[in-house]
Amino acid sequence: MKRLDSSQKVRIALDAMGGDYGPSVVVEGAIMAAEEFGKQVELVLVGNSRMIEKEVERFKLKTAPFEIIHSSETVSMSDSAIQSFRKKKGSSLAVSLDLQKRGEVNATVSAGHTGAVMTHALFTLGRLERVLRPAIAVVFPTEKDVTVILDVGANPNCKAQHLYQFGVMGSVYTNTIHEKSNPKVGLLSIGEESSKGNELTVNTNKLFTGSNLNFTGNIEGRDVLTGKCDVVVCDGFVGNIMLKFAESVGGFFRSQAKRQVGKNILSNVGAFLMRPALRRVREKLDYAEYGGAPLLGVDGITIICHGGSSPKAIKNAIGVAAVSAADGINEKIKNNLRINGLTGKQMKTEENDFSIDK
Amino acid sequence: MKRLDSSQKVRIALDAMGGDYGPSVVVEGAIMAAEEFGKQVELVLVGNSRMIEKEVERFKLKTAPFEIIHSSETVSMSDSAIQSFRKKKGSSLAVSLDLQKRGEVNATVSAGHTGAVMTHALFTLGRLERVLRPAIAVVFPTEKDVTVILDVGANPNCKAQHLYQFGVMGSVYTNTIHEKSNPKVGLLSIGEESSKGNELTVNTNKLFTGSNLNFTGNIEGRDVLTGKCDVVVCDGFVGNIMLKFAESVGGFFRSQAKRQVGKNILSNVGAFLMRPALRRVREKLDYAEYGGAPLLGVDGITIICHGGSSPKAIKNAIGVAAVSAADGINEKIKNNLRINGLTGKQMKTEENDFSIDK
Repeated sequence: MKRLDSSQKVRIALDAMGGDYGPSVVVEGAIMAAEEFGKQVELVLVGNSRMIEKEVERFKLKTAPFEIIHSSETVSMSDSAIQSFRKKKGSSLAVSLDLQKRGEVNATVSAGHTGAVMTHALFTLGRLERVLRPAIAVVFPTEKDVTVILDVGANPNCKAQHLYQFGVMGSVYTNTIHEKSNPKVGLLSIGEESSKGNELTVNTNKLFTGSNLNFTGNIEGRDVLTGKCDVVVCDGFVGNIMLKFAESVGGFFRSQAKRQVGKNILSNVGAFLMRPALRRVREKLDYAEYGGAPLLGVDGITIICHGGSSPKAIKNAIGVAAVSAADGINEKIKNNLRINGLTGKQMKTEENDFSIDK
Repeated sequence: MKRLDSSQKVRIALDAMGGDYGPSVVVEGAIMAAEEFGKQVELVLVGNSRMIEKEVERFKLKTAPFEIIHSSETVSMSDSAIQSFRKKKGSSLAVSLDLQKRGEVNATVSAGHTGAVMTHALFTLGRLERVLRPAIAVVFPTEKDVTVILDVGANPNCKAQHLYQFGVMGSVYTNTIHEKSNPKVGLLSIGEESSKGNELTVNTNKLFTGSNLNFTGNIEGRDVLTGKCDVVVCDGFVGNIMLKFAESVGGFFRSQAKRQVGKNILSNVGAFLMRPALRRVREKLDYAEYGGAPLLGVDGITIICHGGSSPKAIKNAIGVAAVSAADGINEKIKNNLRINGLTGKQMKTEENDFSIDK
């Protein structure tokens, strides 16, 4: 993952109350970030200041390596996204995004309720010029390195135009953050031929084929982990199901393996000896390594962390937010959509008669 | 998995030329089946008789434990499904299904090209009364036992009526083959609330909620492997992507583990000691255990095996075909769709205004 150049400096708001563990994890992540990124990344922790300060005390630092802004409310995991936006104007999430809206920070990181972060960000920051639908992108490890998958849940019902723009935004993202030039974009479908898939993918394939993106065609479920593409495009329904299925697989394999190792002494010794290797596998597959899921297409930088994020995941998300802001990812997306975009007619027309306008 | 009662007897056609390895694997599977099921399952191998006989010779049996019917053609993996049906009337697949159509066998098993098997079966045998769309079901292992997932590829574009019928057919299947009474049916979606998901799942949820099925509501991608449901319903696009992704995960983990074990001697010793346990895990996760994918909803029994099937997978598919035929699974599906079905109006109406008719 790219890091800041020595001349770059950013200021980031961190929703201290978000996530399953609230300030206890977020504060530790912020301290890790301060150590790693130093003065190039100024952090502003937004949340219950008493709780934040209490967490800081655990680390026996002279002063907290970040600013604290008190907020009186918290968006809980059970809050409705839209209600929390309407009613909880003083929440740590709302205050963080307001800071960004006013230009006082360059990015926001939150491990809160995904739907709420998305809704707050979209309503507070608005959409980027030309973007029809913002999308959530995640990073999957692959045989080769990593692949960016989007959308993974923001848009359960999509049209071809939306998927096309996801391809553009995903390309810019992986180009910026993973420093891949001319990233390969694949369309997740069932069957490699352009005519295979559902109505949505058949129409989207046409848009991609006529574009300047480095489109490798349809890919199948089995191709995701091989690293055949740098960007995998799908609608938010399919992406979310695959993401959650993938998250559950490691635990399933472990429980099966434990059951089979059972009381057999040799198997147990074997498992013990393999522990360091298996830990390294787990680390490679751990989403914490990849720094949260960017909400692409809003007019600002918002990184959504998993509710169960570790301090390391928070720290890495701060790193991604910093590079996204410093490298002007949104300017790049805007330019790319201008060069590689759809005509006004295509933006509005029905799905069946697309052709790209270069 | 259920086995035949001692009084049951069936006759099954086996497409000897199907699959990546053709007769070499299919003949071995048939011999394993003959040993395991004895005279209760009469097998008819359809294919190039010279090639089949040559394979039989390898086993040094006095006589082949099955009948052989010669066919002159083979549907290859690269043939178009519809073209193969129109042009290759003498293929092993076509001849097998013709035997079933004429009532000379009770079921057909093929490891051929999935699309071709589906097309041939549908056109030769026709749909079951009341069935809108046949679906392909697969069995996934879970933390508890197994779950049946459908559709996994026959129908990339679905309406709520189709998904509803998949639920009915999947229930009957797992009740018959896995002997689960009142199987729990889950609808694969993103979010557990009935209002969450895409348009298709929101509409399907309403149909299931009003039905007599044991509907547990929406489930998420992470719930598939926990065994929360006995039947997981989804459209063929989502199901196929999840199936192929799942098939790729084992290999990905193995390659990652091998890389991490690397040249470290202790890790290597550990891996060696764990081999028997890991082999048992692999066996449990091996699709070969679960006997192929039934094509549910056609007026006959057709079991589709993976192209790369092992002899054991072929043998188990024969077992599933035998029980499906002997227990009259299609009569049960027809009855169930009669009791638990949609009204004529619902079968034709748009998706938005469904309510179930009991």
